[in-house]
Amino acid sequence: MTPPSDLAYVPFISVENMMRLVHSIGIETVLRELAEAIEHDFTRWPMFDKTPRLGSHSDVGVIELMPTSDGDLYGFKYVNGHPSNTKQGLQTVTAFGLLAQVSSGYPVLLTEMTVLTALRTAATSAMAARHLAPKGAKTMAVIGNGAQSEFQSLAFKAVLGIEQVRLYDIDPAATAKCARNLAGSGLKVTSCSSSQEAMEGAQIVTTCTADKQYATILTDNMIGDGIHINAIGGDCPGKTELHKDILLRSDIFVEYPPQTRIEGEIQQLPEDYPVTELWQVITGQAEGRTSASQITLFDGVGFAIEDFSALKYVHQRALNTGHVQQLDMIADPDDPRDLFGMLSRAGEPG
Amino acid sequence: MTPPSDLAYVPFISVENMMRLVHSIGIETVLRELAEAIEHDFTRWPMFDKTPRLGSHSDVGVIELMPTSDGDLYGFKYVNGHPSNTKQGLQTVTAFGLLAQVSSGYPVLLTEMTVLTALRTAATSAMAARHLAPKGAKTMAVIGNGAQSEFQSLAFKAVLGIEQVRLYDIDPAATAKCARNLAGSGLKVTSCSSSQEAMEGAQIVTTCTADKQYATILTDNMIGDGIHINAIGGDCPGKTELHKDILLRSDIFVEYPPQTRIEGEIQQLPEDYPVTELWQVITGQAEGRTSASQITLFDGVGFAIEDFSALKYVHQRALNTGHVQQLDMIADPDDPRDLFGMLSRAGEPG
Repeated sequence: MTPPSDLAYVPFISVENMMRLVHSIGIETVLRELAEAIEHDFTRWPMFDKTPRLGSHSDVGVIELMPTSDGDLYGFKYVNGHPSNTKQGLQTVTAFGLLAQVSSGYPVLLTEMTVLTALRTAATSAMAARHLAPKGAKTMAVIGNGAQSEFQSLAFKAVLGIEQVRLYDIDPAATAKCARNLAGSGLKVTSCSSSQEAMEGAQIVTTCTADKQYATILTDNMIGDGIHINAIGGDCPGKTELHKDILLRSDIFVEYPPQTRIEGEIQQLPEDYPVTELWQVITGQAEGRTSASQITLFDGVGFAIEDFSALKYVHQRALNTGHVQQLDMIADPDDPRDLFGMLSRAGEPG
Repeated sequence: MTPPSDLAYVPFISVENMMRLVHSIGIETVLRELAEAIEHDFTRWPMFDKTPRLGSHSDVGVIELMPTSDGDLYGFKYVNGHPSNTKQGLQTVTAFGLLAQVSSGYPVLLTEMTVLTALRTAATSAMAARHLAPKGAKTMAVIGNGAQSEFQSLAFKAVLGIEQVRLYDIDPAATAKCARNLAGSGLKVTSCSSSQEAMEGAQIVTTCTADKQYATILTDNMIGDGIHINAIGGDCPGKTELHKDILLRSDIFVEYPPQTRIEGEIQQLPEDYPVTELWQVITGQAEGRTSASQITLFDGVGFAIEDFSALKYVHQRALNTGHVQQLDMIADPDDPRDLFGMLSRAGEPG
């Protein structure tokens, strides 16, 4: 059998190589650079093909495809969300993604995205907070201390200069895990025994819980003036974290309204309730925070463009490193019309 | 660094391994078994999640995602269509696909699908013809002798008992290539210098041309009574192969009407023009061929369920063979909530 040509290979980044790549750059540097890459793509938002993600829902979870394109590159992410997976020792969310050339349709990168999604979600939150949080915020409450909590904490440190995180989870073991992982990060970490306690002195609150149901992680009385709320959990229909009264007191910022109205906190509000698109704040077409007393809410659900930015960033950063394998994933016959000939010759004794 | 656990691995079939697998089984056996697998899934058609493919169109081509699920397994295919690729020595169509467990969202197979799509397209055509072509058909005209032509010829031999193919292409080199590839197949192969000549004595005509434009490969006068037309080329909006008058004389059978009305030959007809769904013929809910003089047309565009059947078939056939590699594509921390801990530990000197 003739070995495949160079065109047949797709660069692949495994989980192990993704972790090596992140450490070779440094986690905080990656978070900072990802926030920049995502912000840059938000400034050219109108250039992208945008569509709500394509979900396949079952009783126990959802499998989603999230494609987008800027006309030059095309990217998509496969991601599942299965809250009950943890009971069987599996991840709630796993993901992989692909980047391809629009001009030929040929893939240029296949990569794990479980680790990468955790990084890009945190980077997006911190980038949004840079535009929305009160100036000089140093303390963040983190409600929900699962898989995303440390990434959020580090991203807010790296991008925003947060110095202290105050942790709370209904499961104290989750809080202990988060505190342990953040030891040595340079953040002051305080473990709290209630959401109320976690909120003390915080200018920012991040909610990242994962149950697939309507929940009220924050109630109205807990949110004082001037707070920035980074609501990250709640990314499917029927799942929210905030009491509706909080939404009514907040100025609400979203990624892509058609998707957020289905999946975000604002599914509790009328369909025409006014929200601001984050990209318009970034480009100066809309106002972000305008006063110290204003409550700002980033109703983040995760959008395909953020994955696109992450794929493109990793593609640039990983090429010419040892962290890439070559996968023989694209058939490449000598004569493109002769796929059958390639198959036939593969059967000949060589 | 601790090696990834078994849960982290996704079985992967490369192009080379797909070709090895096909030869270890035998191409005609694969085509027969694929036709059976696809027919079986067509009998349980109502069980599947169905949606028109999600396409990202550009001036030069299209990149598509084609997902479906039967509630137990979820599958999707990534496929591009770039007719101008051949000029740069690239494939017009390349594809890969993934099968995952609905209950957990975890992938169970990643595989090349360029070769596999060629096989499933031919198997679907032959399966449809088994229900629609005149009894005892022995001769097939093949108009368009590109990458799909040999697969169609062999599938009709394996599934339907076709003994002779009559080839025509506007490019004689394509016909010569197809004839060369089919030498030794057991088929009688006749190279023709016009479509008219190719049609002589044929009970079935397969059209598989690939230009992205309205074309008229077959005109009305070429189609006599009793013919079965297997129209495979023309799988995007704006691309058709048959003159409208042929459609008006035929009974038309399709895979999934909402997709075929956009992409198939019937985009030339009013939106409510009656067509029959192939799965209903297979289950006996609708009639297929009812007379020897009837003209039947399978307006095949390729549907996600056929890819699902092919993915499932290959998954069953390839496991426990040497034709599978293990890809470290899914992050699998010891504690599913501790993705960050897994990443951190990967950075420690080991």
